[in-house]
This record gives sequence, structure tokens and C-alpha cells, in this order.
Amino acid sequence: MSERPSPVRGMRDFLPEEARTRGEVIQRIRAVYEKFGYSGIETPVLEDLRFLLSGQGGENEKLIFKTLRRGLDPQSVTPQTDLADYGLRYDLTVPLARYFATNEAKLPSPFRAMQIGPVWRAERPQRGRYRQFVQCDIDLIGEPGLLAEVELVTATTEALGALGFRGFRVQLNDRRLLHRLLSVAGLAPESFGEALVQLDKIDKIGPSGVADTLVQRGFPPAAVTGLMSIIEASRESADLATLAGLLKIDDDREALDGLATIRDAAGASAADVRIDVDLTLVRGMGYYTGPIFEIQVEGMNSSVAGGGRYDQMIGRFLGRTVPACGFSIGFERIWELLRDRGAEPRRRLALLFDKDRDELATVLAVARELRQDGTSVSVVPARRGKSLRARLLTGGFTHEMWAHGDQEPRELRA
Amino acid sequence: MSERPSPVRGMRDFLPEEARTRGEVIQRIRAVYEKFGYSGIETPVLEDLRFLLSGQGGENEKLIFKTLRRGLDPQSVTPQTDLADYGLRYDLTVPLARYFATNEAKLPSPFRAMQIGPVWRAERPQRGRYRQFVQCDIDLIGEPGLLAEVELVTATTEALGALGFRGFRVQLNDRRLLHRLLSVAGLAPESFGEALVQLDKIDKIGPSGVADTLVQRGFPPAAVTGLMSIIEASRESADLATLAGLLKIDDDREALDGLATIRDAAGASAADVRIDVDLTLVRGMGYYTGPIFEIQVEGMNSSVAGGGRYDQMIGRFLGRTVPACGFSIGFERIWELLRDRGAEPRRRLALLFDKDRDELATVLAVARELRQDGTSVSVVPARRGKSLRARLLTGGFTHEMWAHGDQEPRELRA
Repeated sequence: MSERPSPVRGMRDFLPEEARTRGEVIQRIRAVYEKFGYSGIETPVLEDLRFLLSGQGGENEKLIFKTLRRGLDPQSVTPQTDLADYGLRYDLTVPLARYFATNEAKLPSPFRAMQIGPVWRAERPQRGRYRQFVQCDIDLIGEPGLLAEVELVTATTEALGALGFRGFRVQLNDRRLLHRLLSVAGLAPESFGEALVQLDKIDKIGPSGVADTLVQRGFPPAAVTGLMSIIEASRESADLATLAGLLKIDDDREALDGLATIRDAAGASAADVRIDVDLTLVRGMGYYTGPIFEIQVEGMNSSVAGGGRYDQMIGRFLGRTVPACGFSIGFERIWELLRDRGAEPRRRLALLFDKDRDELATVLAVARELRQDGTSVSVVPARRGKSLRARLLTGGFTHEMWAHGDQEPRELRA
Repeated sequence: MSERPSPVRGMRDFLPEEARTRGEVIQRIRAVYEKFGYSGIETPVLEDLRFLLSGQGGENEKLIFKTLRRGLDPQSVTPQTDLADYGLRYDLTVPLARYFATNEAKLPSPFRAMQIGPVWRAERPQRGRYRQFVQCDIDLIGEPGLLAEVELVTATTEALGALGFRGFRVQLNDRRLLHRLLSVAGLAPESFGEALVQLDKIDKIGPSGVADTLVQRGFPPAAVTGLMSIIEASRESADLATLAGLLKIDDDREALDGLATIRDAAGASAADVRIDVDLTLVRGMGYYTGPIFEIQVEGMNSSVAGGGRYDQMIGRFLGRTVPACGFSIGFERIWELLRDRGAEPRRRLALLFDKDRDELATVLAVARELRQDGTSVSVVPARRGKSLRARLLTGGFTHEMWAHGDQEPRELRA
């Protein structure tokens, strides 16, 4: 091949220093989540397409990498041939629901699950968007009460805090309040799905952009105007009494009171956090049923983590309702932020030896001794013409210290 | 769905305790390899099928999970349609060679790479054989000398030793000696590939089984008899002078002297290891060019790690020879051995609370305090009717200690 080969389009190789910092970020998140009682689990990267295409994944179901059936004879395919049977997971929540349904009898109740691993989406590659990327999820399954939401917010802000992030802003909403909002504005229930897809774009295109799109898509202009004025009023004052008034909520205050409880308890339990109700927070996934939330950190405009309650998803596998709530950290975004801030390179020892003079066995024995205390020691033949200066002769061979990633080796201090 | 869903056929879910012990085994291996100067790298799980189907992977190329092209219209497929473009990697060596060719300018020389990750093969599922499994590889790229082989053997036995394995037996051979063996026995060079496939089965079906199969497959009976008598003689006495005689080696002693150097230097550098030359060691992959090796541990009949030199593979990507040598630990086998030996369960604290009596905020504040020293604390509503005895009342809520995985909680000592 004349051209240098590349990784698959939209996917990345990680150089040693990158792989190291990725591992360290994951270790820090893992340590915090373990303190909160979450246990790591693992599922295969492939799932049966029947599970992945159940309608819970919204737009992501269109982005699945599917595997060709094994044993398929390419010479006999027709438009009727069933070409694919499995798919690479597009998130960690659908596999978790399947895992819980499979293994329920062997799991504690409630079950605190932690999953950190890659997911795949065949999106159009662009800056900052990859076709293989890592998600860090925690989920609390079997807990119907608000303890779940409060704990997820507390644990996730603490994990982000352990990475050095500060100034957390949590946005809260509830799928039921979103439906109430659209209903009070006079939209027809069968159009809620489409309206939410558009409302989800409000951070990108602004309220007037959303209003224009809705009208273009055939929503009644009067209803759209009403919707936008409620949203505007809620942004001016998001205290719960105001929201109750705007949404004309009198008796069924469960969703609204729930947000108040989450706000107060998470506000007391988590450090350095401001929690606001935001009526325009949508989150894309089709499976949410109750409270939903996102976290922003100081110095970044977009959110770094998001989640919510999905009480109906596991029921699709089990035939009975199992309450569940989860929070997912967008790993790639926070890793890029931390990488750009720069990390301390790890120090390593390079033990140079001269093939013509040093006995390999002697050099290896010295390397072994130096490794006893955990030091990383690479044995390197000195024959290469690189400018390795500052050599020290010790017992018949030369060695020196360098910091991994440095251009220049430094002297080994005896 | 009426039936409980399963993972994809031949692939596994890992329960929390399993995921934890897998992670710990990986961490221990990683720590040893880092001490030897190896750096973790990551590649995408998918590679271009052109790279995976280059003929280097032997039988494994038939076992690739291929991904369906995105945007393919199922209504218009014909036998001419190119259905697949990428594939899940079947080992970590082909992706490493591609990675090195892609990123060479940013990598040190020589380059010590460590890869620990899953690979996929669509084999017929059977006990102990999985379609997704983890490999732990180290590779030394850019080192043509025997330092590479000696270091790989030393580091891998040390990694296995750190996991508690003892009594290592390393089997050594060289692809060039295998060719010499077949040549001296009078086999035709164009039949060497087929002969090696059969010879590789000697541990399973014995020398007479291999001889019978070779004759059945049309090899000249006299040559087969000659081959088996050389093998028998080499098994009675494998000292290098005897082997030189059996293989009629006079002047070109490079391969044989190389094995002597590896045996002596690795024998001195690695602990608790016996190293033997075994003329029947083949190893399946098509890409090996020089020394090959496997490690067995006390109490197991089959090998737990294997590797060798593959000086031609990277050249296929780069158009010039780059020396390379690697060693791969069969992770699943050693994890199963360690799991069956049993591991110490990790202790966790469960903080029970009574919804009708305890304030959520107070419980969460206590949990937070208990986590300060790194203790894992799960907050659990006590409403569930499970037999949780031995409760201790402290400050308005109940809590107790349990060991994760235990059936019975134990008293918290104040």
C-alpha cells in the first residue's frame, strides 16, 4: 500500500499519552461511583437488533452499525434476504435494561449499576462528533422514589468535582410537565412528539427559531404564540408557584413537588451546585417518563451529563413495570476539556545499553532491580543515533532518566 | 415479550462480582507491563475489511463479524452488491500493525505497546469458547534483536506471577526451524502450510494421529515416517546439539543460537521458569517469521499465553520491513482459573432508612460523611421486607454493614 492506512472513518486511534489520560479520567469517575455503592457491569457490545430497534432510542435507531448474518451466501441475496441480525449498541441504557431482564434473579434490589464503555453511532463525522465514543452511566433500578434522582445528581456532580470541574448548574424538568406545557398551550397530544423534537433545539436556534419552525410545520400560530409566551414567562421567574400558575396546575402537583424535593435535597447534598427548573429541557431519548436533568460546568456552554427516569423501558422486556433512573456523563467532552488543560507527564526510566559491551543478562538484572519499587523501566539499545546526551556510566552500561513524552532525556540522579 | 431476553449467542453478561474481578486481573497485568515500559494504546473495534482480510489471520479471517454498509437499500441488493465494509477485529495484532503504520511519526522507537481489550470471532459457541473475549497483548516494535523475545517472556511470566500463578514452563520454537524440519523430512515446500496445520494438532491427537492424517491427506508415507521419527528423537533429547544434528544444521545456526540466547537470558531474568525448545510448537497465525513461544502454568495442561516474532506484517502497510514481536495472554482462561479459586469479596456499607421517619437530606448527609474515607455506601430504603436483621439505630435512622455478595448483613461496629 502506498498510502498510510487510516482508522475507520469517524473513529480514533489513541496515542499512549491519550490512552493514559483517558484511563485516569475513567478511574476517577469509577472511584466516586463505587463510593456511592454502584457496581461495574459488562454487556457484549453487540445486541439483538430486535432489542435495539424497539422504538426507544429515537433518532439513534437510524444510526446503528448492523452486522451481516454469518453464513449468508452473497450469491443468493435478494431484496427479501434478512441481511443483519445484531447491532453495535448506540447507548448503554438499552443494553442495561436487557441485562437487568436477563439477570434479575442474581442482582440485588435496588440495583446500582455502573457502565463505562464505548457506544457506536453511524453519524456524519464532524469536529467533536465520533462514531465510536465512550459513555459513563450510572443507573438505579428498582427505586421508585426521588432518592434515585437526588443520589444520581449528587454522585455525578461529585464525580465531575473529582476531575477538577467546579460551578455546577443542574437543569431539571419532568416529562409530565413538558406534556402539560404543550397541552396548556393548546397543542394536540398526537403532535407532542414532533413539538418536543423542535423545542429541544431552543438552545441552538432560540425561541423565535423554534416558533418559526413550528409554524412552518403546520402547528396553529395561536398555539405556538401561547407556548412561547409561557416559556418566556417561565424563564423570567422559574419559582415553583409561578410555574404552577403558568401550567394551570391545581391538584396534581406530583411532578412539580418532585422537582422541588430533588432541588432541595440535591442542593443540600451536592457541593458547589445551583439547581434550576427549566421548562424547555427536553432530552432526546423516547424512553423518559418522569424527571429529566442535565449538568453544566463552569466555563462550558453545553451540558456534560444528562439523564432521567425511564420507568417503562425494562417493562418492555419483563412484562411488568420496574422503576429505573439513570445519569450519563459525556466522556469525550470532559476528556477533551481535561486534555486541553494539560496533564503531568509520568516519569519513566530508560536503561540504555551498548550491545557491543554490555551483557544482556546483566542489563536485564539491573532493570529488574530498578522495577522493584514500581518504577517503569524501558531497556533501550543505545545503537540508535538519536541525541541522547547526559549519559551516566554505571557498572558497564549507560542509563538515563527521561520524562515520557519529553524531547530531551535528563540526567539520572544517583 | 414472554421469554426473558438473552445476550447475543456465544457472548456473555458479567455480573457485578465478575466485572470487578475481571477489572482487578486487568489492573494487575497492566501494572506489571507498565513497569516494563509498555504504554497502553487504543484502536477502534472496527477496522476496514481490506486490512482484516489480508491473509495474515489464517482461519480467523473466516470468523469476522462484518458490518453492513450504511445507506444500503435492502430493496435493491443483488449478488453483485458490496454488502459489508468494516469488521470487528479478530485479534489485537492486525489493528496494532495498522495503528503503527498510521501513527509512526508520533511514536517512540522502539515502541512498547500494551493493548487490553475485546476481540470477536464468530466461532461455533461451546464451553469455554466465546464470540467476544478479551486479549492482553504486549508488543515491541522496532527491535530486531533478541532483547524483544527475552523481555516479552520475562514480563509475561512476571505478570502471571503477580496474579498468583507459579511453575512456568515456556516452550520455544522458531518458524525457520519448523520449515527446516519439514524440509529435512523431505516434504515439498508448497505443502508446508498444510503440514503445519496438521502438526499443530499434535497435543490433541498425538503423533500417530498427526501421521495418519498427513498420509490420508496425500503426504508421502516415507516422508511422514521420517518426520515423526525426527520429532520423536527431539522429544527424547531437546538439547541444541541434538537438534542441530537432527535438523542437519551446520553453518546457518542463527535460529538455533537465537533460541539458546532466549533460553539462557530469559531463564536468568524470569523467576520460577523452565524453558524448553519444542520442535512441534507451531502457533496458528500466518504472520510469524522467527521465534515463537507459549507459556504453561502449574496445574494446567494448555498454554495461557503465546506469541512470537512477525517482522513482515507492518511492512504490508508501510512498504518497508519493521521488526516486531508480541506476546498475548489468553485473558478468559486465566480469569476463569482465578475466579474458580475464589476471591475476597469487597466490603460495603448499606445505609438503611425508613421513609416514614427519616429525612432524606439527613440520611444523605450521613452517607456523605461515611464516604469521606473512601468507604462504599449504598443508601437503601428499609421498606422492603427482606430479612435484614441486626439493625442499629443511630441518629434517627437504621444502618448496617454487609459484605457485598453476602446473604446476611452484619452488625456495624461503632
